[in-house]
Amino acid sequence: MEKNINLLNINKELVLASASPRRQKLLKLFGVDFKISPAEIDEDNFSSTLPNEIVMELSSKKALAVAEKFDDAIIIGSDTIVWLDGKLLSKPADEADAFRILSELSGRTHKVFTGITVLDSKSAKILNDFTETEVTFREISDEEKLAYIATGSPMDKAGAYGIQDDFGAVFVKKITGCYYNIVGLPVSQLYDLLKEIIS
Amino acid sequence: MEKNINLLNINKELVLASASPRRQKLLKLFGVDFKISPAEIDEDNFSSTLPNEIVMELSSKKALAVAEKFDDAIIIGSDTIVWLDGKLLSKPADEADAFRILSELSGRTHKVFTGITVLDSKSAKILNDFTETEVTFREISDEEKLAYIATGSPMDKAGAYGIQDDFGAVFVKKITGCYYNIVGLPVSQLYDLLKEIIS
Repeated sequence: MEKNINLLNINKELVLASASPRRQKLLKLFGVDFKISPAEIDEDNFSSTLPNEIVMELSSKKALAVAEKFDDAIIIGSDTIVWLDGKLLSKPADEADAFRILSELSGRTHKVFTGITVLDSKSAKILNDFTETEVTFREISDEEKLAYIATGSPMDKAGAYGIQDDFGAVFVKKITGCYYNIVGLPVSQLYDLLKEIIS
Repeated sequence: MEKNINLLNINKELVLASASPRRQKLLKLFGVDFKISPAEIDEDNFSSTLPNEIVMELSSKKALAVAEKFDDAIIIGSDTIVWLDGKLLSKPADEADAFRILSELSGRTHKVFTGITVLDSKSAKILNDFTETEVTFREISDEEKLAYIATGSPMDKAGAYGIQDDFGAVFVKKITGCYYNIVGLPVSQLYDLLKEIIS
């Protein structure tokens, strides 16, 4: 990695309301310092049935929960879900569940939604948006599913895969939209929102 | 990274005919040992005018050049080009050229082609294929272009950007196709070709 982006010129404290190491790694691309303050909210509790509304509702809740702890900071909330056949694919409950989820994804196209909330805790200005990416899996064999599950990697991931994993990279044939959305933080969109909130 | 893929069961020596650290990193996803033997060919010398034919011609030349050095190995050749308005965007000659290339890409959609050749140097069996991905840039300001060029990163890259860079990640709004193709090695396709050649 070469020198980082320093165009944002943020004079305020920046806080990421997420414990995800993948999001922390992506936010580091901006080359700005930030604090990590994971939001503790119930991610299974939302009112909407539409995926774009669900992720924005959850990312707002995360940002608002953390905003209480900081008087004068910009808080970033984010939530990612995997969507197939009109329903949400959660993190697998156990290995059998991971096998079932991977079987559902095999040879088909699903969607990944990420909601992003950027909140100025002093002015209470809040920006909300979402990104949608289509992901097409190749056909994956039962042997491949079992080998992937044996690595342990699917167990903490919505939809039971990570596109940045070794197996995940091999399973995904095509995407349409933002790649970093699938990893968990659409950096191009977040850059726009941060520029807007500090302007 | 968790345990690696071990489904390939390659009993032969595997050789990557490329000096690119990005390709080496991606090939490591497969969890198999490989040697690196960069091909020395003239990348500006090709006969076709079609991007998919150009990349397959160059990836074949690379694999064939390296095959001479190994009696019994599987050689991987690969070539990536950036294509806009019916012409190839090379690596920038200097910083002014990088500025010109980034200005051409700003706010528009270009294509990235990678040719992959997998060659068994003993049987002389050879498989050739290519992957095409569309990449859409957001509008980038002159200030952003200059800041990116100042990092030095664009100078050794076709099309003057790397999607895995900090700036590259921010500039790319959307892709259609394989993400790893843009990085330089379409891993899902390569996995298929390797399975086919060892079968």
